[in-house]
Amino acid sequence: MKALVYGGPGQKSWTEVPDPRIVDPRDAIIQIDTVTICGTDLHILGGDVPEVRPGRILGHEAVGTVVDVGDAVSTLRPGERVLASCISACGMCHYCRRSRYGQCLGGGGWILGHLVDGVQAQYARIPFADLSTHRLTARIGDEAAVMLADILPTSYEVGILSGQVRPGDTVVVVGAGPIGLAAILTARLYSPSHIIAIDTAQSRLQAAKRFGADIALRPDDDPLEVIRSVTDGLGADVAIEAVGLPETFEMCTTLVRPCGRVANVGVHGRPATLHLEDLWIRDLTITTGLVDTFSTPTLLGMLGSGRFDTDSMITHRFPLDDFAEAYEVFSRPAETGALKVVLTRA
Amino acid sequence: MKALVYGGPGQKSWTEVPDPRIVDPRDAIIQIDTVTICGTDLHILGGDVPEVRPGRILGHEAVGTVVDVGDAVSTLRPGERVLASCISACGMCHYCRRSRYGQCLGGGGWILGHLVDGVQAQYARIPFADLSTHRLTARIGDEAAVMLADILPTSYEVGILSGQVRPGDTVVVVGAGPIGLAAILTARLYSPSHIIAIDTAQSRLQAAKRFGADIALRPDDDPLEVIRSVTDGLGADVAIEAVGLPETFEMCTTLVRPCGRVANVGVHGRPATLHLEDLWIRDLTITTGLVDTFSTPTLLGMLGSGRFDTDSMITHRFPLDDFAEAYEVFSRPAETGALKVVLTRA
Amino acid sequence: MKALVYGGPGQKSWTEVPDPRIVDPRDAIIQIDTVTICGTDLHILGGDVPEVRPGRILGHEAVGTVVDVGDAVSTLRPGERVLASCISACGMCHYCRRSRYGQCLGGGGWILGHLVDGVQAQYARIPFADLSTHRLTARIGDEAAVMLADILPTSYEVGILSGQVRPGDTVVVVGAGPIGLAAILTARLYSPSHIIAIDTAQSRLQAAKRFGADIALRPDDDPLEVIRSVTDGLGADVAIEAVGLPETFEMCTTLVRPCGRVANVGVHGRPATLHLEDLWIRDLTITTGLVDTFSTPTLLGMLGSGRFDTDSMITHRFPLDDFAEAYEVFSRPAETGALKVVLTRA
Amino acid sequence: MKALVYGGPGQKSWTEVPDPRIVDPRDAIIQIDTVTICGTDLHILGGDVPEVRPGRILGHEAVGTVVDVGDAVSTLRPGERVLASCISACGMCHYCRRSRYGQCLGGGGWILGHLVDGVQAQYARIPFADLSTHRLTARIGDEAAVMLADILPTSYEVGILSGQVRPGDTVVVVGAGPIGLAAILTARLYSPSHIIAIDTAQSRLQAAKRFGADIALRPDDDPLEVIRSVTDGLGADVAIEAVGLPETFEMCTTLVRPCGRVANVGVHGRPATLHLEDLWIRDLTITTGLVDTFSTPTLLGMLGSGRFDTDSMITHRFPLDDFAEAYEVFSRPAETGALKVVLTRA
Repeated sequence: MKALVYGGPGQKSWTEVPDPRIVDPRDAIIQIDTVTICGTDLHILGGDVPEVRPGRILGHEAVGTVVDVGDAVSTLRPGERVLASCISACGMCHYCRRSRYGQCLGGGGWILGHLVDGVQAQYARIPFADLSTHRLTARIGDEAAVMLADILPTSYEVGILSGQVRPGDTVVVVGAGPIGLAAILTARLYSPSHIIAIDTAQSRLQAAKRFGADIALRPDDDPLEVIRSVTDGLGADVAIEAVGLPETFEMCTTLVRPCGRVANVGVHGRPATLHLEDLWIRDLTITTGLVDTFSTPTLLGMLGSGRFDTDSMITHRFPLDDFAEAYEVFSRPAETGALKVVLTRA
Repeated sequence: MKALVYGGPGQKSWTEVPDPRIVDPRDAIIQIDTVTICGTDLHILGGDVPEVRPGRILGHEAVGTVVDVGDAVSTLRPGERVLASCISACGMCHYCRRSRYGQCLGGGGWILGHLVDGVQAQYARIPFADLSTHRLTARIGDEAAVMLADILPTSYEVGILSGQVRPGDTVVVVGAGPIGLAAILTARLYSPSHIIAIDTAQSRLQAAKRFGADIALRPDDDPLEVIRSVTDGLGADVAIEAVGLPETFEMCTTLVRPCGRVANVGVHGRPATLHLEDLWIRDLTITTGLVDTFSTPTLLGMLGSGRFDTDSMITHRFPLDDFAEAYEVFSRPAETGALKVVLTRA
Repeated sequence: MKALVYGGPGQKSWTEVPDPRIVDPRDAIIQIDTVTICGTDLHILGGDVPEVRPGRILGHEAVGTVVDVGDAVSTLRPGERVLASCISACGMCHYCRRSRYGQCLGGGGWILGHLVDGVQAQYARIPFADLSTHRLTARIGDEAAVMLADILPTSYEVGILSGQVRPGDTVVVVGAGPIGLAAILTARLYSPSHIIAIDTAQSRLQAAKRFGADIALRPDDDPLEVIRSVTDGLGADVAIEAVGLPETFEMCTTLVRPCGRVANVGVHGRPATLHLEDLWIRDLTITTGLVDTFSTPTLLGMLGSGRFDTDSMITHRFPLDDFAEAYEVFSRPAETGALKVVLTRA
Repeated sequence: MKALVYGGPGQKSWTEVPDPRIVDPRDAIIQIDTVTICGTDLHILGGDVPEVRPGRILGHEAVGTVVDVGDAVSTLRPGERVLASCISACGMCHYCRRSRYGQCLGGGGWILGHLVDGVQAQYARIPFADLSTHRLTARIGDEAAVMLADILPTSYEVGILSGQVRPGDTVVVVGAGPIGLAAILTARLYSPSHIIAIDTAQSRLQAAKRFGADIALRPDDDPLEVIRSVTDGLGADVAIEAVGLPETFEMCTTLVRPCGRVANVGVHGRPATLHLEDLWIRDLTITTGLVDTFSTPTLLGMLGSGRFDTDSMITHRFPLDDFAEAYEVFSRPAETGALKVVLTRA
């Protein structure tokens, strides 16, 4: 088969590799029908994720069709259409028993396209397939479903749920890239009174408004002042960090009111400064997290009943063998306007 | 009357001042029967709390007897014995309606001995008296009650409740001064499996064991290794910062497992470094906070039914006019072994 | 002034009575601008609420203008426009300290038009005015606000919050009168996947669909079968009882899945049968409750930011002195199609 | 091997049967080392559980040694000592993903000694062995562990956790048989201020006091009056039903204060009357439930660190082949004083 193989920093190729096969009785093999690229894939290509070794097939977000299952797989059958989640779950460890699959101690967690071969390929092996895939009903299309492989549950779980967004809240989302936009989209499930997006790029601010932000600001628009003006001077209830920089994290801690919550969703490479000399007295709650995808069945149900739609997430479409172009477009969002790009089997 | 008056950094005196009087119909005047000194008072004397102006009477933890009440006080009568809480509450603002009295927007919060005259005196004015005092039954002694003016609710609310301590948890308390010891005492209300205390002073580690720590360690005893040895390698469920230094805060973030909680109770004067490059993926919850004293009625009830005792908190006793000596002893705990000192009206 | 005075079962009159005056320093006097009638008022007139004595002025839902305040009122001034809540709160008792104002032990709770004179009058005395009224901004109209005096917080707190409605849930609302419709409206704040309304009257089922029900059924349409068909055979997550009869309560307990919740909002006059021989094993949570109106500030904020609207709640409008006709229309909803009727000062 | 075989109502025999063998790759076979009898076994023998067919081996609470495992079992090996939980869990269904194993849709739940052969035998097949057993460390003895197969997690999860017992609460436990005593034992993990036990038998009231009840009453001792006397007239925070009769359930609903919780643990055969005409306004929460055993790892950890002990639960001990006598003693507790009886392999 063909697959997108990582060749070391800056190197990747769509190339012929051996077909995957079942190596554990809990594995399934799926044919990839629709797949997308994540910002994390760009980080890997940038050399920032050293545990990814050359030769690894990338990708952790796909919709596919089951072609084979191991002896211990009990809920899947060949021919079924499934969403392959970015998180795999052994189902038995301390964390999996608490639905915290992202922290799986039994060999799962984020492994696809990271510690084992991923889904940017014609076929893929999905470990712990019973708990790591979700069957799709006919009413949910591939493109909609693939948005639930990573980005929507990430923003929903790590941003909205950890941030405890509640009806009537004022929610500020710092960063209006795909993760920030997904945070805006899923924050709306809890009917906040105000959603305020902050980004440096005008195009992203416009996207934020399309996704449901009530106010879209640049960092130099004095966000704190604007937020206070809609909150009786108190500040935001929840700030969601969707960038991954010390500066944006620190901004979040200044935008929330006493008793506010800061939910960090961004992937960070450097430490931030926590101004405890100001914050110790402000009853702040700060959360971090990797997605668990425990919410994926719920989100799929809501997608099926039309409670939200993910169409505007997808800006570019490619055939499956056009990864070179897809990566090219996705890696230059300022010029291409790319949010999510999808590749589909012919 | 006589009162302990702040005279600027390093200056204090037990001196004659005018008696307090009712200035708002919600005030009460109490005669001070038993009072204690807080580490915060030492900070004020050190000049670290500039909003405290010379001339201010210090102190925010007392038990007294009501001598007069304003026209709008509805639940107190002269002659009643009350605990004066360190936190005053207007009862009507956004935060008071949510029991977050520490963040009161209506003129309350921590004001005693800070923004208004305090309780290290023969008499004191207690603003918003209905919500800022607690009547005492005969079975609760003054000394036990005064421990509930600040220190116990602080450790319980900001440490144990914000840290979400649960039965079976492994709880590490960093800092075994009065606040840390109160955290150990109140953590036990939730039956953790292990309580581990960390401090540099041997005498405090011994105190920690007396208060209920299962393990007491010095920072160079490799706490992480010890904690892992009792938690299947995972780390603590909850770490409680009870010192107020960047180093101890940062230690807390390294001692907890993925999905763990860090509850900051310490008062900080400098920023800490938050290693988001490691922590973003670990599902951490970090909380800060000022006490609200919403738990004081509950703690008083438990004290009354013998569910815990605070006797060993109090190491030194003085008559009310001996503040000079009491401060002297309290400010040199390494030499005096002081935890809490109380002063009592003759 | 004129007021609607209860004269005993079946008796009421719009008649001249003395003006209200301040009797406690926490009282306010308001001029009534807009007022509505509650199903409870009909119960009182039916003689079902014997603690309401002849001579009592009825009514507990109004918007008005402050004309006078007692000495201990600190947040209101004459001339301000306020919502008078159906629940009064002393702010100091065990329950008020926990925001459970409906259970106030200090003289509040549901007292207006019940234990003290109410708001179906030209003027009214509002006890504990600071905590029992809510100032209105110019952007919120009288008619919208008066829907938040009772009906919306009742359905939201006792139905949606107690029932723990969450995104993706299937929610069944049994009874599509005003309370049931308000439950549908406020359930949507949590983005359930399916809202199913059940009622016997076709007109109410149509209203339910207008308010946001996805499916509207009669009891003989086999609701359990329909609910199972949209929930993988499991049953509803939440059932909200909005009628007040044993039969509808019992129906609710049959419609929810294992681990489901039944939130009773209806006012009951007779016991129900709880089939513990079936239910003991089904992990059910059943809640009852009187509204606390702790959510009113949040709901007002959402109303102000356009997060929901209450316009279609109001079907009939009358001048303030036309209570006879307003009661007549409101008491015959099957014929008049009345949901809520409002009366407004000329 | 030999096993205790149900022969229809009133019939059982310790008799020779074929050895169990692995029928699903997720099965394990264990040798039974220590086993106990549950009140449910008596119900089965009484003919009250018709889905148990003659020929069924009874029993769902055991400690054993793994002798064989299926191909898909990944965490157990022959020779390991395990607790066999009363609840089996497929780990993949809607409920298992939420740790609600008791409601398993995938073939688990309460099946041992019910729908499949149980553990009152020399050997037993344990379905879904990875999630349905718990490995035991050397420091936890068989007798202590077997109390965690059913009775302790049942009282803890369905009583204490569902009842939301919190520090300082007043908890009333109605019924002081084994389940009620386990509720008293595990309630103490949350440090309630008062635990009040109610039973008709003097011997059980004495046992209740030994297990930690502060007050032990007969139903005709006017429990409501006693409870009010220790709760400022309010009533209990939590009432735990541990009998299974309509009368005791109804008593529970009268003993709790407004905002109180009634947690039903008892197994009921008849409906109860729910006095909604009184209760609709009292903000009650009523819960029912089957144990999930999600708390078993936590309870095992606490047992290992000495946080509670279960010794006084066990009143009688027998060799494994003496089931006749063990059932005889267990079924006549009033005469024998039996709480839990254990049978141990020679």
